[in-house]
Amino acid sequence: MTGTPDWIAVDWGTSRLRAWGMTASGTELWQRCSENGMGQLARDAFEDALLDLVGDTLGHGPIPVIACGMVGARQGWVEAAYRAVPCPPLDADTLTQAPCGDLRLTVKVIGGLKQIDPADVMRGEETQIAGFLALNPDFDGVICLPGSHSKWARISAGEVVSFQTFLTGEMFAALSQHTVLRHTVQSDRWDDAAFATAISDALSRPERLAARLFTLRAEALLNDLPPAPAAARLSGTLIGAELAAARPYWLGQDVALIGATDISRHYATALAQQGVPATIADVDAMTLKGLVKTRAHLKEPAA
Amino acid sequence: MTGTPDWIAVDWGTSRLRAWGMTASGTELWQRCSENGMGQLARDAFEDALLDLVGDTLGHGPIPVIACGMVGARQGWVEAAYRAVPCPPLDADTLTQAPCGDLRLTVKVIGGLKQIDPADVMRGEETQIAGFLALNPDFDGVICLPGSHSKWARISAGEVVSFQTFLTGEMFAALSQHTVLRHTVQSDRWDDAAFATAISDALSRPERLAARLFTLRAEALLNDLPPAPAAARLSGTLIGAELAAARPYWLGQDVALIGATDISRHYATALAQQGVPATIADVDAMTLKGLVKTRAHLKEPAA
Repeated sequence: MTGTPDWIAVDWGTSRLRAWGMTASGTELWQRCSENGMGQLARDAFEDALLDLVGDTLGHGPIPVIACGMVGARQGWVEAAYRAVPCPPLDADTLTQAPCGDLRLTVKVIGGLKQIDPADVMRGEETQIAGFLALNPDFDGVICLPGSHSKWARISAGEVVSFQTFLTGEMFAALSQHTVLRHTVQSDRWDDAAFATAISDALSRPERLAARLFTLRAEALLNDLPPAPAAARLSGTLIGAELAAARPYWLGQDVALIGATDISRHYATALAQQGVPATIADVDAMTLKGLVKTRAHLKEPAA
Repeated sequence: MTGTPDWIAVDWGTSRLRAWGMTASGTELWQRCSENGMGQLARDAFEDALLDLVGDTLGHGPIPVIACGMVGARQGWVEAAYRAVPCPPLDADTLTQAPCGDLRLTVKVIGGLKQIDPADVMRGEETQIAGFLALNPDFDGVICLPGSHSKWARISAGEVVSFQTFLTGEMFAALSQHTVLRHTVQSDRWDDAAFATAISDALSRPERLAARLFTLRAEALLNDLPPAPAAARLSGTLIGAELAAARPYWLGQDVALIGATDISRHYATALAQQGVPATIADVDAMTLKGLVKTRAHLKEPAA
């Protein structure tokens, strides 16, 4: 579906570019996606990548584009400065305009958040958090955003107070593709019981994490451990290690999960095992809500 | 240097094939090495790979070849069965003959060791341990063999009592090459202080391991953390996690390290920080000693 939009919302991550054509009232006209993630693009290739995806929908313009994610990194289209926490997840006054030769577009990029000590950064998740807070303005608790780089963020009074990033998703990919475990954990199926046991082991004996990984390979060789429970145990071991280190975040807190469905469910299961209920919100929906909120602020600046 | 040997000692690992031409009295005539590791070879390619390396030194034969390492794995030249611990590291009576069309060679492969519970396996390290025990027959303590798959083995009365494998070396490679840390930890230099701090942190707060990895990336982005201390911290974090999980092995024990020089020194430094002195033995020398000992047993079977 196409149609000339009032403005365009863009989520531009490392591996994916997603755009929504929007009406003035914030309704979605169309949604498109390409593989032209920031990771594959040189700085001068961003404009063409965006035009390839949405160019046929543009009128005379200029149409405002609001973008979040790695597009604002140092290696992205334009560097959009980090804001330091504690701060609200979004600040429409600090968007960074990207250089754009095509006069039909005006592109503004949302900056990420940084934390000085312990050092940490996010780009894109601040927009998801803002979308969640637009839906839940009184939320006071912790938001977990599972993924390649999982994030835990403390939210209070509409601000991100502190946050912590974990390499869990990338570690799972690197271990299951680039170590001897690749022979042992390739599976499209899942094993709830193996996952639950691994979570429990990781949280009760976190100091034994490093000992648990090669055991998967040895059990496959000696005991014919099948791939599905092996993969679920690897996932549970790594998510359990994340939960052990993130305990100060979730202990006794309300937790909201923003992420893809499968991985969010695994985190919710693991947290439920610890007596922590967690609600799940869809990541693409939260991103779009955050972009819509930013657009609304741009049109009607706060007094 | 060449010369027709009395027998040939072979260390055939996943990525490397090393052969020593030996005299009847156990002296080294020559040493050669190729990249034809077990990982690159189909089952019917092993004989040619060995002949490529040593064929020009053979007389009419048959010359005995004794081989250890992954050459005896299920995907190797011939599967050499694991023996279960507790047991001596070598048993010359259980070598497995490899199928060999060239009549100038008779190839026998040393089997690895297995542990039923917790499941674990080794192939090649048993020969290194045997070499160390040939030099130190009364050793009672713990041998650590750092590498891609680090091993800790309890030794008593000439037997391997139990052992545990850690994926530490492969994890370092996978994290530093196949995650976002690749932008942060590429360095040929080292940083002793950063390593020592990471070891200390890992051992005092092992439950925070997963939190320490992304911090390297964030500190590089926000504080210009240079690659050398970042790489040393990644190494210290992973070796520290191994030491935390292996504490029952090294606490209050005599520790011997068998490995490559650089990595062995890092382990020795980390153990010294914990008040545990460790001696270092060269891994190739121990392998050859173990192969020589096996050959001696074959020639003069125990009564």
